Amino acid sequence: MKKEYLYSPGPTTVPPQALSVMGNPIFHHRTDRYRMMFKTVVEDLKYVLATDNDVLVFTASGTGAMEASLINMLSPADRILTVNAGKFGERFGQIGRAYGLDVDEIIVEWGHAVDPEEIRKRLTPEVKAVCLQLCETSTATAMDIRTIAEIVNKSDAILVVDTISGLLCDQLLVDDWKVDIAIGGSQKGLMVPPGLSFASVSDKAWKMAETSTLPKFYFSFGKTRKSLEKYDNPFTPNLNLVRALKETLSLIKETGRDQITEHYIRLARAVRAGAAGLGLEIFSKSPSNAVTAITLPAGIDGAKVPAILSDKYGVTFAGGQEQLKGKIVRISSMGYINEFDIVTAFSALEMALKDLGHSFTEGSGVKAVQTELLK
Amino acid sequence: MKKEYLYSPGPTTVPPQALSVMGNPIFHHRTDRYRMMFKTVVEDLKYVLATDNDVLVFTASGTGAMEASLINMLSPADRILTVNAGKFGERFGQIGRAYGLDVDEIIVEWGHAVDPEEIRKRLTPEVKAVCLQLCETSTATAMDIRTIAEIVNKSDAILVVDTISGLLCDQLLVDDWKVDIAIGGSQKGLMVPPGLSFASVSDKAWKMAETSTLPKFYFSFGKTRKSLEKYDNPFTPNLNLVRALKETLSLIKETGRDQITEHYIRLARAVRAGAAGLGLEIFSKSPSNAVTAITLPAGIDGAKVPAILSDKYGVTFAGGQEQLKGKIVRISSMGYINEFDIVTAFSALEMALKDLGHSFTEGSGVKAVQTELLK
Repeated sequence: MKKEYLYSPGPTTVPPQALSVMGNPIFHHRTDRYRMMFKTVVEDLKYVLATDNDVLVFTASGTGAMEASLINMLSPADRILTVNAGKFGERFGQIGRAYGLDVDEIIVEWGHAVDPEEIRKRLTPEVKAVCLQLCETSTATAMDIRTIAEIVNKSDAILVVDTISGLLCDQLLVDDWKVDIAIGGSQKGLMVPPGLSFASVSDKAWKMAETSTLPKFYFSFGKTRKSLEKYDNPFTPNLNLVRALKETLSLIKETGRDQITEHYIRLARAVRAGAAGLGLEIFSKSPSNAVTAITLPAGIDGAKVPAILSDKYGVTFAGGQEQLKGKIVRISSMGYINEFDIVTAFSALEMALKDLGHSFTEGSGVKAVQTELLK
Repeated sequence: MKKEYLYSPGPTTVPPQALSVMGNPIFHHRTDRYRMMFKTVVEDLKYVLATDNDVLVFTASGTGAMEASLINMLSPADRILTVNAGKFGERFGQIGRAYGLDVDEIIVEWGHAVDPEEIRKRLTPEVKAVCLQLCETSTATAMDIRTIAEIVNKSDAILVVDTISGLLCDQLLVDDWKVDIAIGGSQKGLMVPPGLSFASVSDKAWKMAETSTLPKFYFSFGKTRKSLEKYDNPFTPNLNLVRALKETLSLIKETGRDQITEHYIRLARAVRAGAAGLGLEIFSKSPSNAVTAITLPAGIDGAKVPAILSDKYGVTFAGGQEQLKGKIVRISSMGYINEFDIVTAFSALEMALKDLGHSFTEGSGVKAVQTELLK
């Protein structure tokens, strides 16, 4: 009977319109029925990414598309420049090293965005790809992709952006900004369960792909593009997720890409206001609109906050990872979420803080959220 | 309003017990709730495979697990012996060559099983892995894995078997027969939509993995095994499919692995009897119980059979691929399928044959199916 509320930065709540179609009978994917559905999904993904580039879809979670984006572009010992500002930026470096690439890693203090000037400095002619996140989920930090794109576009390197958690929340205009590869996943702003990921590929990236010699098969961009010509997939797709995605993309288009981003900006402001109302700091110096990390009060056992929220109140927040374990909670404002969900989130947070004996003006978080929303 | 019937050799019909849970709200995967669910799924997969080996699960379709099974075992220029008896056997060779392996490929005439003696002959000391299918789906042909395992077990090579379409239909006893890697997928005998695949890994295979230098990240067996210790996944899993799989595996356990195989043997016999009743030949000389390929009469436009069945009658058969296009239809007897479904399949096939002007004794297919089922 306990009602449940999901504020994790992926997977996010799936709208009933998409949940219901996942309970429909399955059909065969080598059919026009599937191809028409997949065509709509691909076209709508282009709309979400603001691009005319090919969008390649993979039956895999986001890391699969991150790996695909490197192995289809590069050859052994190629140099890449990665931004390690948290767990997901670190992953680009891990993938690169697993494939024998020469990884130049910019280490950024957790909670900070990379300084675009640092990228300019490290962008030597040897660098073939610059890889970073739109939103670094582990620290809830937005990167200035627009400025970084201007810098990378002047070089021969391609810009590879993991937009998995930031998409639709932090602005991204793939064609306007010239982002060569934009990577996304199904289970965040796109509001369906995990299991599909995708990558848009610019002409500059396709050109680089021609000389890539790293091995690939399942994640081959070439095979995937060839199948895409007929709105097919080279290997059996997760057609149930494609079907669900068609529904959520339709909801997104109805509302409008830019209107949705405005909505998340407003929600993230409310989250930050709520934290301030409780006298709590925002962890990130460059907070994302997709997810907000709130630094927990020093006097309480912070690791218990997500546990109490989940066990006692049915509310899922994400805690901190690695060095941030027990120090922060992360509240997502991505996906199928609205003003009242943010009020609820702070109502629950206040309850957990009270349970843990933290002293604060009761109702001050909820009041601050409400005041911000009424602006 | 048109009722639909799915006889494709994957995806197969999803039972309502599994369809319904896919419409349930999503939850977070880094939780004990997920881990308990995943533990049950992994244990039940071991039961299905008849193994105590680790079973590693990937969010990817079957080809992903095929690729994983090679790249986690081998190093560049290693020799593998593959059996190309159709499209899926061919795929092992394609993956091997994409990774710079030395592929020795046994070409088998389509519709035939590989002769185990041919494997014995080609199994030189350089061969590190022997790769083939339990059921080659494109030709509906079962391979004699038991005998081949006896041969390979005497060598230092590992035996890699793609059981994706054969699992539960053609007998497979991973531990008894010592199959080092058994690869499966979600959308065939396991009766959930595509998007999950898995591989069981023997001690002999884990030993070989220690020296493997081919690059891997998303499909890393090592990372996946480490996460499995806590019933976790290294990367976000398709938890909605894990949830559905828990339901279908529970149905499978209720019935019993061997009882289920007996059921499919009986259904496949009925399919073959139906074809004989219509005076049609079975294409394969070693027919699988998972799917049956029926050679179409020479006088009709064979490519139209699946099209008419689907458009006019709502019945999905698979046609032939490549050289078999227009020459065969494939009727699957895997998954959520029973006696009455086979009667329906032949009722539909007779209607399509009649529509195409083929002359035959009306009702002879259905009658032969029924007679076989009454035995």
